[in-house]
Amino acid sequence: MSEGDSTLEDDVGTVYLVGSGPGDPDLLTVRAAELIESADVVLHDKLPGPEILGRIPEEKREDVGKRAGGEWTPQEYTNRRLVELAREGKSVVRLKGGDPFVFGRGGEEAEHLAAAGIPFEVVPGVTSAIAGPAVAGIPVTHRDHASSVSFVTGHEDPTKEESAVDWDALAATGGTIVVLMGVGKLPAYTAELRDAGLDGDTPVALVERATWPDMRVATGTLDTIVDVRDEAGIEPPAITVIGDVAATRERVVEFLENDGERGGDA
Amino acid sequence: MSEGDSTLEDDVGTVYLVGSGPGDPDLLTVRAAELIESADVVLHDKLPGPEILGRIPEEKREDVGKRAGGEWTPQEYTNRRLVELAREGKSVVRLKGGDPFVFGRGGEEAEHLAAAGIPFEVVPGVTSAIAGPAVAGIPVTHRDHASSVSFVTGHEDPTKEESAVDWDALAATGGTIVVLMGVGKLPAYTAELRDAGLDGDTPVALVERATWPDMRVATGTLDTIVDVRDEAGIEPPAITVIGDVAATRERVVEFLENDGERGGDA
Repeated sequence: MSEGDSTLEDDVGTVYLVGSGPGDPDLLTVRAAELIESADVVLHDKLPGPEILGRIPEEKREDVGKRAGGEWTPQEYTNRRLVELAREGKSVVRLKGGDPFVFGRGGEEAEHLAAAGIPFEVVPGVTSAIAGPAVAGIPVTHRDHASSVSFVTGHEDPTKEESAVDWDALAATGGTIVVLMGVGKLPAYTAELRDAGLDGDTPVALVERATWPDMRVATGTLDTIVDVRDEAGIEPPAITVIGDVAATRERVVEFLENDGERGGDA
Repeated sequence: MSEGDSTLEDDVGTVYLVGSGPGDPDLLTVRAAELIESADVVLHDKLPGPEILGRIPEEKREDVGKRAGGEWTPQEYTNRRLVELAREGKSVVRLKGGDPFVFGRGGEEAEHLAAAGIPFEVVPGVTSAIAGPAVAGIPVTHRDHASSVSFVTGHEDPTKEESAVDWDALAATGGTIVVLMGVGKLPAYTAELRDAGLDGDTPVALVERATWPDMRVATGTLDTIVDVRDEAGIEPPAITVIGDVAATRERVVEFLENDGERGGDA
C-alpha cells in the first residue's frame, strides 16, 4: 500500500487474508506475526491451533469456526462480518490455518471483499500440505521418486452431488498425492487409488496435528494404512501423503531433529 | 533439540534445511529469520532473491548456485560441503527459495545428511508455487473452480531420457496446474495440455519474480500465453498458473493491496 492510495475510502479498514502456517508459532511468517499483533480484530476458526490462538488477546478474537452445538458458522456470515468490520474502519485479520488460498475458502472471501469494494491483502502462509510431510522427514517431490505433487481435500463440500476429485487421473500422474483433511474418508480413497492401478505396497504416511506439540506420525502402505490409522487412533486434523516419497521418513528419521519434542511415531 | 540429546556427537553441528519463501523478507518464517541470524554459515543459490540475500553478512555466505561461467555447482559438492561444515561443529543453514522440499532437492540433502550421521532440521517455507499466484490475486484452489492443484517443474533434470511429467494425466485431474520454472518450456507444455484436451480458452497467468520488488504479472489463455510472454518479455524465475482460478485476478485486482508496490501487470 503506498501513501498515494488514500481516496474517499479513507475510513474503510483493510482486510488481511493471513495464513498462520501449520501451527508451530515459529512457522508464522514475519508479516503474519506483525499483523496479528497490530490488527483490531482477528477472525479465526480452530485450525491455526492452540499455540497461535493462545497468543492472540481474547478481546480481539472472533471465532467463526464451529459453534457450540457443532454447527459451522456459514461462510456467508464470515463474508458479511469481514465487510462490516472493514466499514467500521477496523484493521481485520482473517486468520486461516496453513495458507489462505489452499482449500481455505480465501478465494471466495477475496472475491466477496472486492465486490464490496473493500481493500484487502493476501499474506501467504506455510501450507500444512507441504510442511506436515516435511517435518516428518518426507519431501513431497524428489528427483528420483516424484516429478509432481497433487493436493486434494478429503473433506469435500457436502452439497456437491458427486466427488469432483478424479482419483484415476491423480493416480495416473505418477506423482505424490497429498490429501488434506483426509482421515475420515481414508478407506474410500485408498480403495479408489488401488482400483486406479496404484500398487498396494505404495508407501503412505499420516501426519496428525503437524507441528503441534502433540504431533504424531503413522506410516504404512495403501493396503495397510486404514488398519494403521485405526490402531494408532489417528484423528483430524491430519495430512495423508501417498507415494514413494513417504518411505523417506524411515531413512532419515534417526537424524531428524524436528522429531525432538514434536512428531513421535504414533 | 532437547538438552538430553547430547551424545558423543557433541562436536557435530546441525544442518538446517530452510525455506526462504518467495523472496519478500516479510514472508520468511520467524524460525528462518532467527536461524539466518544465528547460523555460522549460510549455503545458498540465487533463488532466495536479492532482498533476503542482502541481509546476510557477506562473511557467512557461501554461494552454491551458478558459478562464474554459468555452470551449476554439482549437487555432490553441496552435499559434501554440508557434511564437512557440520563436522567442523558449525551451525549450517542451507537456504532455499520457497520451501526446501518442493523441487528444491532438499530430500536428497536430507538423505545424504542422515547417511553421514549429521543431525538436521527441516524448516518449511512459504512455497512460491502457492504464494506467487496468491499475491497476484489467484487462489490455487477454489470451491467452485478447482478441487485439486498439482505442482510440476518445467525445468526437469536434463539427464532424464524423457519427460517424467504426464501432462495427459494432469489435464485429466480437472484441477489447477502450477508449473515452477516453466518460462522456457511454456510452448511445449501448453501444446501438450491442449493436445490432452484442455480448452484453448483456459485462463493462464505468469507471475515473474513473485513478491520481489520488481514482480510482474501477465495473463492470457492456453492459446495466447506464449505470445503474452514474448510481448511482456517475461523471464525466469516465474510461476505459471493454468486453470479457471487464473481468471480470479481480474475480478479482485482493483482492491488487492499486494499490488501497491509489487506486482504490477507486465
